[in-house]
Amino acid sequence: MDNGEFQYVDAHFGQFVDELRKAVQKPSIAAQNVGMGEMAEHFRQMMESYGISARIIPTKGYPCVYGEVKGKSDKTVLFYDHYDVQPPDPLDEWVSPPFSGEIRDGKIFARGVSDNKGHACSRIQAIGTLLRLRGELPLTVKFLIEGEEEIGSPNLSAFIQENADLLRADYGVWESGYMGRGEIPGMYLGVKGILYVELETRGAPSDMHSGAASSVPNPAWRLVWALSTIKDENERILIPGFYDDVLDPTDTELELLRAQGDSQRDDRRASIGVKSPLLELSGLDLRVRSLFSPTANICGFRAGYLGEGQKTVLPSKALVKMDFRLVPNQDPADILAKLKKHLAGKGFDDVIVRLVSMDYPVKTTADHPVVEAAAKAAKLVYGKSPSIAPTQGGSGPMHPFRKYLNLPLVSFGVGYWASNNHGPNENIRLVDYRNGIKMVMAFIDNLAAV
Amino acid sequence: MDNGEFQYVDAHFGQFVDELRKAVQKPSIAAQNVGMGEMAEHFRQMMESYGISARIIPTKGYPCVYGEVKGKSDKTVLFYDHYDVQPPDPLDEWVSPPFSGEIRDGKIFARGVSDNKGHACSRIQAIGTLLRLRGELPLTVKFLIEGEEEIGSPNLSAFIQENADLLRADYGVWESGYMGRGEIPGMYLGVKGILYVELETRGAPSDMHSGAASSVPNPAWRLVWALSTIKDENERILIPGFYDDVLDPTDTELELLRAQGDSQRDDRRASIGVKSPLLELSGLDLRVRSLFSPTANICGFRAGYLGEGQKTVLPSKALVKMDFRLVPNQDPADILAKLKKHLAGKGFDDVIVRLVSMDYPVKTTADHPVVEAAAKAAKLVYGKSPSIAPTQGGSGPMHPFRKYLNLPLVSFGVGYWASNNHGPNENIRLVDYRNGIKMVMAFIDNLAAV
Repeated sequence: MDNGEFQYVDAHFGQFVDELRKAVQKPSIAAQNVGMGEMAEHFRQMMESYGISARIIPTKGYPCVYGEVKGKSDKTVLFYDHYDVQPPDPLDEWVSPPFSGEIRDGKIFARGVSDNKGHACSRIQAIGTLLRLRGELPLTVKFLIEGEEEIGSPNLSAFIQENADLLRADYGVWESGYMGRGEIPGMYLGVKGILYVELETRGAPSDMHSGAASSVPNPAWRLVWALSTIKDENERILIPGFYDDVLDPTDTELELLRAQGDSQRDDRRASIGVKSPLLELSGLDLRVRSLFSPTANICGFRAGYLGEGQKTVLPSKALVKMDFRLVPNQDPADILAKLKKHLAGKGFDDVIVRLVSMDYPVKTTADHPVVEAAAKAAKLVYGKSPSIAPTQGGSGPMHPFRKYLNLPLVSFGVGYWASNNHGPNENIRLVDYRNGIKMVMAFIDNLAAV
Repeated sequence: MDNGEFQYVDAHFGQFVDELRKAVQKPSIAAQNVGMGEMAEHFRQMMESYGISARIIPTKGYPCVYGEVKGKSDKTVLFYDHYDVQPPDPLDEWVSPPFSGEIRDGKIFARGVSDNKGHACSRIQAIGTLLRLRGELPLTVKFLIEGEEEIGSPNLSAFIQENADLLRADYGVWESGYMGRGEIPGMYLGVKGILYVELETRGAPSDMHSGAASSVPNPAWRLVWALSTIKDENERILIPGFYDDVLDPTDTELELLRAQGDSQRDDRRASIGVKSPLLELSGLDLRVRSLFSPTANICGFRAGYLGEGQKTVLPSKALVKMDFRLVPNQDPADILAKLKKHLAGKGFDDVIVRLVSMDYPVKTTADHPVVEAAAKAAKLVYGKSPSIAPTQGGSGPMHPFRKYLNLPLVSFGVGYWASNNHGPNENIRLVDYRNGIKMVMAFIDNLAAV
């Protein structure tokens, strides 16, 4: 890395920020079909302006933007980002309008500035800068910027499968990364899988006066009883075979977790009103459980009267939304089958199980060269070793990259612990944005040297 | 009973209906404080117009209307009714406006026409007619028409206690009664008690991304586990001592239930999606359970995401609304204490139990003379024996009448199986209204002869 190249970033940082603000000032809300085509075209033009050959490729939904720079080497790195954003509501909780990109206190506030336009822009700018300064990259770089991440990437898997030759790469960079509390740059190497289901029970054709409860069964009770067979008070999931395919953390992964600070503060215990063995966990045990244990979570329970005060009603139906976060090598389709079999086996074949969505757990091994290249770049840019999480608690559409491209993936970026993705006043810090550009530049050189 | 008196009713029935329509054309919605004072005054004037001495007595809420006619005998019967009505919405489901009192197909449609203005008017008209025709009643008659029944009668108990001397009576008539399917006049002799509670659990201070579910406990799960200790799949309530004070039906009560037709149709089984031992019940077993078994019912369960589609959220709290319908001699305060003790004993002392309301079960023994007087009147007016339910599935503010006045109560009236109280297109049939007036007249004479 030529130090002059970092100085170039510093000298042109005002322009980079202006460019980012232009990107976040355009709404691109996939869920509401707002500004989607315009945003794809914006990113295509932005890449072209940096000498990155770019084009828009249609899908069955919103199009993808594909960019490519051939380098000295055929060795290829692929950046995955997305140009769609979450809806900005609740609007009245924003200090400045969500698509203003207002700068205050050294931060840029806008819907999508952290998730994910800040990441996409910083990466284009970093690659573009290297190209401008050197005329040629040390390796080949590809960009895939999709438009449906915030609505569950319904067409991404098919797109990757159909365009596997085009997208072929040796290394991948995932969409985002965050500075942790304590100013330690954070990276994660995987995502949990997810199985999202609805469980529904049905009683009388319509809600009844609760005076009928002595003779008409209640679907809310039925669902309570069914759920109580799925997980016990010790947080043990009772579905037979549920844990069969769960991999224990490797020694390297345990080592990474040992090196991590305790980002999960223990003071949460005081603010949580329910009893749980989860509250007994701390330190390494807590971190291992967070990343390597699958969950069975009630996202929502809806039955009968939901308003204030008293209504004496016997509900006609009850609905629970659940997500199971899965870890390697659990298979969401297998877990769904086991859940159905479990309920039937317990006599709850009257509980309707509807699949809402599923995604597979994926992780990149911690000793992969792409991880080393990123860690080395972080040391250069931030002056400290990153905190590397072998995976994360959340999920994401990482699986088709693994399945069709066999891509090892690492995650780093321009967010920080209070970026508030999906919430009001989403923001990134200017200092992280500047470092994020440099981080990509250093990473490219490290990767070329592998 | 002089048959000429029934002919008088027939001859003047048009006027009686006009008078009822005037009463239902005035909205009197306690929950919305609409027209309450005007309605109380309307009933006071109506009673006065029939020679019934009437006055309005204030309470801490909406006032009561009290009416009285001294008879030949000090033996006294008290009619309990209410002048408030439920809100009329959903308005767009009404065929004619809810306060129009439109007559079509031999029915009067109006909010409150069945619950409870039709009953109140028919009783005033019956007593007023006897008074006009005879100059004097064979016994003393009192009317108590309150204004807060549809909002839970919050001031009725104190009112009865404070005015016990004024209200003192030997017999009581409860607010309503219905013709059953098959045109059998129905009576009931009691109400279930009720204990309405909210159970709440609290987790993290605000909803979290469900990726945190591996380390942050979920209050919805906690509530599911707590509920599963309250009632089992066999519909057995597991709170220790819950059934201690439950009275078995008497031989007379069993006899009444044997004589009843099967009003609870078995075809409901086909339309109910959940499994339950309740669906195995039929005939006498079903009727006995309906009236003599207490219940533990989930009225509502609210936690986390209640909308459509997928949201991966870890709820910060969970709330269940439950009602326990109680039978003689269960005491709702005792059941509340037992519920709390049970939850604490099972380790669920973190579940917040909030009392919303309670009321006591009450029943009048089936062999009481007031029941005989009503049954005999029904035979005269309807030409058939009534179906007498020893109690009913619902609850009502009957307890202070028992506690402070020691009043035996019987229930009969002008509604029918499709009156749709509280719902759109509430209505009564003109034929039932006419018979209802005659029924009161015959009842008075039978009671005087006891």
